[in-house]
Amino acid sequence: MGIDDRTKKLIDKLKQGDVSALARSITLIEEGELDISSIEDLINGKGKSYRIGFTGPPGAGKSSLIDWLIKHMRNSNEMVGVLATDPSSPFTGGAILGDRIRMQHHFLDQQVFIRSLGSRGAKGGISRITRDASYLMQAAGYKFIILETVGVGQTELDIMNIADTVAVVLVPESGDFVQTMKAGLMEIANIFVVNKADREGSKQMLNSLKFLIETSNAVQDMWQIPVVLTNGLDGTGTDELFRTILRHIDFLNSHTDTELFLRKRLHELKQIASEQLSTNIEDAINGSTMGDYISKLKNPSISPYKILKQLMQDKSFLEKILK
Amino acid sequence: MGIDDRTKKLIDKLKQGDVSALARSITLIEEGELDISSIEDLINGKGKSYRIGFTGPPGAGKSSLIDWLIKHMRNSNEMVGVLATDPSSPFTGGAILGDRIRMQHHFLDQQVFIRSLGSRGAKGGISRITRDASYLMQAAGYKFIILETVGVGQTELDIMNIADTVAVVLVPESGDFVQTMKAGLMEIANIFVVNKADREGSKQMLNSLKFLIETSNAVQDMWQIPVVLTNGLDGTGTDELFRTILRHIDFLNSHTDTELFLRKRLHELKQIASEQLSTNIEDAINGSTMGDYISKLKNPSISPYKILKQLMQDKSFLEKILK
Repeated sequence: MGIDDRTKKLIDKLKQGDVSALARSITLIEEGELDISSIEDLINGKGKSYRIGFTGPPGAGKSSLIDWLIKHMRNSNEMVGVLATDPSSPFTGGAILGDRIRMQHHFLDQQVFIRSLGSRGAKGGISRITRDASYLMQAAGYKFIILETVGVGQTELDIMNIADTVAVVLVPESGDFVQTMKAGLMEIANIFVVNKADREGSKQMLNSLKFLIETSNAVQDMWQIPVVLTNGLDGTGTDELFRTILRHIDFLNSHTDTELFLRKRLHELKQIASEQLSTNIEDAINGSTMGDYISKLKNPSISPYKILKQLMQDKSFLEKILK
Repeated sequence: MGIDDRTKKLIDKLKQGDVSALARSITLIEEGELDISSIEDLINGKGKSYRIGFTGPPGAGKSSLIDWLIKHMRNSNEMVGVLATDPSSPFTGGAILGDRIRMQHHFLDQQVFIRSLGSRGAKGGISRITRDASYLMQAAGYKFIILETVGVGQTELDIMNIADTVAVVLVPESGDFVQTMKAGLMEIANIFVVNKADREGSKQMLNSLKFLIETSNAVQDMWQIPVVLTNGLDGTGTDELFRTILRHIDFLNSHTDTELFLRKRLHELKQIASEQLSTNIEDAINGSTMGDYISKLKNPSISPYKILKQLMQDKSFLEKILK
């Protein structure tokens, strides 16, 4: 995908903070019509943004919590963006807008940008779209970029890996979820939140989480995973949650030379590289290069591994995937 | 990964139908210790196997149905393999053995091989492991290879794309599931099964499915998607299900020059190619090549897209990923 004058203009407007240019360019990402690596030079160089991931079981009240956090972030006068995904549903495109209604009283605030993401058939899947959209928001000057997702499957993990800080939101009733997912939770969580903490069992959940943290082998470079109690209805504890997020961001900033920081960056690089090559492979295989291989493909007794071996010796194929 | 004498011996034994060699080599695939493309020459050339995918919501009774199908397949004197996965749980490795107990009375039958697959941290994920394991089973002489998975998320779709024939198993109560997933279901299903058909509402489910099939745009090259009513408790309808599967296999065999067949093969090729390159990228980035890039990675203001661009110009990096 080349970059034309119209795209250039769009990105220019986006960098000036134009909200409709941002919305339009995210749509282009969703539709696979804009390749962020082709505009990398254009979007680079803006101030650092922080990506804050929120995940947890359905019904944990993430949207209400995020609503409160937006308030705290706006009080510190920073621009806030929210990218919400529901990757459990690849077919609906995952964009469940209804749930975002709770955040809608920020809709009149020009400094708050809320967007539900779907994949709309674009290559690379929803985690790629989320990451690319977050880079566009960074270029548009958003300081805090909140990534919201539901569940802790592979796709959700991929999305949470984009975040600098990951908050796992639970409720007192999430015992089973924690039991089933504990290895995965300990892998991604930087902060645990027990929401709806006015309900019975919240103390018990707090203790289980503390026990889990103490007995786990998860090393986060001296970061002790905190547990914050909140109530999304009246906002109790959400100021502490915001302070805890800021504390983790400070921690990251003073530890850029650590193993953890490098690991995150390497992970991101691997993902981007493998997504880009996958897209190129898809294009190359869909393209006309395959003429010589069609008869082999039509023969079911020739394994795809054999065909791939031949393709990897084929100069014109390699040129296409390394474009 | 080179291929040593021990691996050669293992694959030789596997090709003679040695069950423990098959089990051992699948474990090596799960652990990422065996790269099937490196033994492609060894396993190639055995008779054609058929991969039959079973998916649907949890509790639809897939395991009992598969149990009956194994009986019918064994009556036709063919070797049967089952690969079961639960990809919704990336952390437990997805290997829920308890559910397979219903199939256990086949455990004494040497011609039936049942295996729960987990990823155990191997690269490429569970769909790669499932596909590679199915190629090993093909080399070992299994004619029918049943792939069982739960749900219809992206990973399950990837697994079902490996199958020649996909049966979606529903129960009379699956109305909501069908409504939510209908686009995805119509994309993958070659056969619909309404199991527990003695229950109330099965007629209604049958009619909804027929309506869905009639009104859908899914073109399957003249294949009319059938709906089969079954009862996993007493086996009612499972003989018809088996005949329907055979009919679809016949259909595929007489349509190898169709768009559909080619599309499946191209899809498989793309997946294998992108998985292999992803693995190579991971190895290359984890390896020592990255020395020059570490300082860039440690600088958070340099975007990963920029670093990737430089890597893609780097000959020693390219050599590693195209090895």
